[in-house]
Amino acid sequence: MKLGTVERGGVPRLAISKGDAVAVIDDDDLTVAAAIADWTGLRPVIEARAETAPTYPPEELDWLPPIPRPGKIVCLALNNSANKDRIMSGPEHPATFIKPATALLGHRRTIELRTAYGRVHPEPELAVVIGSAGRQIAATAAGEHVFGYTIVNDLTAPAMRGEDTFHYRAIHPGASPDEVRYVDTWVSYPGRYKGTDGFCPIGPWIVTRDEIADPHALTISCRHRGHTVTEDSTANLRNKVPEVVAFISEYMTLEPGDIIAMGTALKASAGGGRAVQNIDLTATGGPIEVSIEGIGTLTSEVATIDAGSPPLANGRAAG
Amino acid sequence: MKLGTVERGGVPRLAISKGDAVAVIDDDDLTVAAAIADWTGLRPVIEARAETAPTYPPEELDWLPPIPRPGKIVCLALNNSANKDRIMSGPEHPATFIKPATALLGHRRTIELRTAYGRVHPEPELAVVIGSAGRQIAATAAGEHVFGYTIVNDLTAPAMRGEDTFHYRAIHPGASPDEVRYVDTWVSYPGRYKGTDGFCPIGPWIVTRDEIADPHALTISCRHRGHTVTEDSTANLRNKVPEVVAFISEYMTLEPGDIIAMGTALKASAGGGRAVQNIDLTATGGPIEVSIEGIGTLTSEVATIDAGSPPLANGRAAG
Repeated sequence: MKLGTVERGGVPRLAISKGDAVAVIDDDDLTVAAAIADWTGLRPVIEARAETAPTYPPEELDWLPPIPRPGKIVCLALNNSANKDRIMSGPEHPATFIKPATALLGHRRTIELRTAYGRVHPEPELAVVIGSAGRQIAATAAGEHVFGYTIVNDLTAPAMRGEDTFHYRAIHPGASPDEVRYVDTWVSYPGRYKGTDGFCPIGPWIVTRDEIADPHALTISCRHRGHTVTEDSTANLRNKVPEVVAFISEYMTLEPGDIIAMGTALKASAGGGRAVQNIDLTATGGPIEVSIEGIGTLTSEVATIDAGSPPLANGRAAG
Repeated sequence: MKLGTVERGGVPRLAISKGDAVAVIDDDDLTVAAAIADWTGLRPVIEARAETAPTYPPEELDWLPPIPRPGKIVCLALNNSANKDRIMSGPEHPATFIKPATALLGHRRTIELRTAYGRVHPEPELAVVIGSAGRQIAATAAGEHVFGYTIVNDLTAPAMRGEDTFHYRAIHPGASPDEVRYVDTWVSYPGRYKGTDGFCPIGPWIVTRDEIADPHALTISCRHRGHTVTEDSTANLRNKVPEVVAFISEYMTLEPGDIIAMGTALKASAGGGRAVQNIDLTATGGPIEVSIEGIGTLTSEVATIDAGSPPLANGRAAG
């Protein structure tokens, strides 16, 4: 099943894919979060309701993030095997950062950029939606904790990244308990360059795991203004879903509705695509689209506005 | 007023400070989140209920994070003026990262560390609790968006930080639209070294802003196993609360209940304190305490357990 969330009359409503049409269920108790909390019990209820619910073309709906307020959004960095040639040193295991829920943006919404952000580029990513809570989940049991899969566009502002990087002397313990020594260290902080409002377009659909035979055999592509930028396969993700769920849950409790973005697709398309890093959304606008085989297409418009302008409403109040 | 959250019979309950005692209000509708959402309306109700509610000594209560699930926890890095001598390059403005809500730990709970984490050190911090939503908040209006202040211990695992740092060649646009050039770059990802379960002890109290005349005139200290490690003043924080609220909200919508941790206190105490970075909680255990004048004392126990052991319950289920 494909589940999403749309805004109807100012409230979030459960949306179910019916091929080219979308069934919208007007029921306060049937939400994506409720479906995740009791999938066995609610699946037949939702299927029955979707049969009789009114349907709409997807382009007539106001989309919200499928889970408007996930507990956390854990994102993997540099997890594409194509990165390997560029990495002089770094971990083999997943390296992660957190995006805040305020960065989320529904399908077909407008990413609001400001000229002061500098270049902002897309990162097309497969994302895992956690179905059941766990800590220290074994890789062999990870599948049972996955509710389904969705699409994330992990927008990144490299100029902010550069600005928010420190070269400093970190304090480490010295030879005796009261001494310190200084270690030359680089640290960068992703709060702003990864977490700005609108930097996490997501959806439109969460596809339940039974419909994805292998999450690492999916074509993933990114189109900018109608031109294919990248066409990659999720096979090229370095750390795979079971190991990622196991590694993250070694440190953090995973909760139902948590999102794990698996890292970007990178391979340039055979048709002469550019690196995703070459796309400057701030300067050139949208639309920007991410498509994953079997999951769907996430489309975002782009508006670059002046620093002094008030923010767009963008469906945030209803989420 | 000082507001907190405790666990009573498996449910979170509003706690109000009454000097040495704590009034606990058994009412599903009176929570810290509800108080923040309608402070003008609920303050007199809460004051009246606190007069008649049963009281307990604080050490007999099971403390939860004052806001068990904030929308986001934004943390400032390297925001102490004492850092200045150590920074070779870096921004003057606040640099931020996000901790997930699963990292939160209530007062008097046990920080669960594992030997594999390596050294874990405390970072005693003043934290701002947002009262009303806003984007692009002017520094002059920031005070109106602050509900109050609390204490955060921003635990940090430097070995994980080192492991999750990449030295790589970042892709930047080249001279022509289809070319790229490579830029030697260091990036570090704080998901794990800042966001592991238990790495964000918080509370016990949120003190409403009317009781804190100047958030940058407060003594902040850290004690480890009864020995004072640091005794600093919030005057030494480089970026101050109004500018921090303004800067973060230039990028992210701030929402009621959001937490902003202002960065660590660093100055060694006159009594021969050590740098906070010298404290290895993994190796030496607790208790670890953070005190801020006018706000209170946040105490955490520490248990270092083997990698294979199941996690402690630690009040997480009730949060």
